[in-house]
Amino acid sequence: MSVLPQSVEKVINEFSKLPGVGPKTAARMTYHYLRSPNHDAKQLSEALGEMDDTITFCKHCFNVSDKKICDICSSTIRKSNKLCIVEEPLDVVAFENSAVYDGFYFVLGGVISPAEGIGAEDLRFKDLKKRVRQMMDDIDGKELEIIVATNPSLEGEATASYINDMFEKEVKEGTILISRLAMGLPTGADLEYADRLTLKRALEGRRSI
Amino acid sequence: MSVLPQSVEKVINEFSKLPGVGPKTAARMTYHYLRSPNHDAKQLSEALGEMDDTITFCKHCFNVSDKKICDICSSTIRKSNKLCIVEEPLDVVAFENSAVYDGFYFVLGGVISPAEGIGAEDLRFKDLKKRVRQMMDDIDGKELEIIVATNPSLEGEATASYINDMFEKEVKEGTILISRLAMGLPTGADLEYADRLTLKRALEGRRSI
Repeated sequence: MSVLPQSVEKVINEFSKLPGVGPKTAARMTYHYLRSPNHDAKQLSEALGEMDDTITFCKHCFNVSDKKICDICSSTIRKSNKLCIVEEPLDVVAFENSAVYDGFYFVLGGVISPAEGIGAEDLRFKDLKKRVRQMMDDIDGKELEIIVATNPSLEGEATASYINDMFEKEVKEGTILISRLAMGLPTGADLEYADRLTLKRALEGRRSI
Repeated sequence: MSVLPQSVEKVINEFSKLPGVGPKTAARMTYHYLRSPNHDAKQLSEALGEMDDTITFCKHCFNVSDKKICDICSSTIRKSNKLCIVEEPLDVVAFENSAVYDGFYFVLGGVISPAEGIGAEDLRFKDLKKRVRQMMDDIDGKELEIIVATNPSLEGEATASYINDMFEKEVKEGTILISRLAMGLPTGADLEYADRLTLKRALEGRRSI
């Protein structure tokens, strides 16, 4: 005899699939929904169902969207000669929330990571090539600026060089300019606690004031 | 213009209602479902919907169940003169998984906690009284053993004394025996790291070997 009703076991089992959520946390989460007075479970259930039905990937940037071409990619006021390459959709959210960027995006879907068995063929490099060609056609000879905004990790760096190699010819011809986000001290950081690599990068990238 | 599609925002919003889950974790959880190849979102959605539709509280013990009287309360092989009072349904699971108890349960639904504004009237004390009377009728004059298994916290202790006071008369008459779970060192603990109160309790509760 199982202690818990089957439908409860099923929900615990589903929550356990979340990264970093063990069976105990999954059980706590499930019991939260059992206790909630205003049918939170039903609300989450409906929200998830709706998301699963309506969400797709934008054909241009591969960000999640409820349209074939997302609002950002179909915007006419964005700079059409700037492409920011990020790892995940949440990175787009971070950029948009900070309102510091006015070009287009491309979501790679991860980074090259031999340790996790993620090779170049698992990411959207073919689609990236297609998108870059398309944008170059659109701006008709003007220089396209590619900003590689992968995370400042080993894998992010490797992926950035891979992208750099991909467009070597165009960079030499001067039709593409590739840059990488600056690395250094984050705002509000304490020098005393900065790690060696961050300090090294901050020193290398020093600018006149 | 919102960065995220509305249906995604909705799911993030629902996950944020979970205790201890902030907007960033909720976003990560939501994106896990967007990335999952085998429609995990749909599966969780269906499991939650089913749970919300089928789950009720057992009329005897108030544990979650898909029946009016749960499997434990309707069991005929359990000792009908033992009642274990716990805070939450997950406590029942803990007892059942350890297979150390063979009586019935009663789920209080929490503990008295003035700090969180939870008074005696918010818990199931009336139902507890009814259940105890019912069990005393069933065992017809034999002594009923009540085991108070609230957590060893300040609130759990206060709730235990409240229960003790509730049945003062019956305890004096010898029709009810109330006990509390032993407190002391947990298995595998290191004496060196035991807190003062645990040590005090372990010393108070020492037994001959």
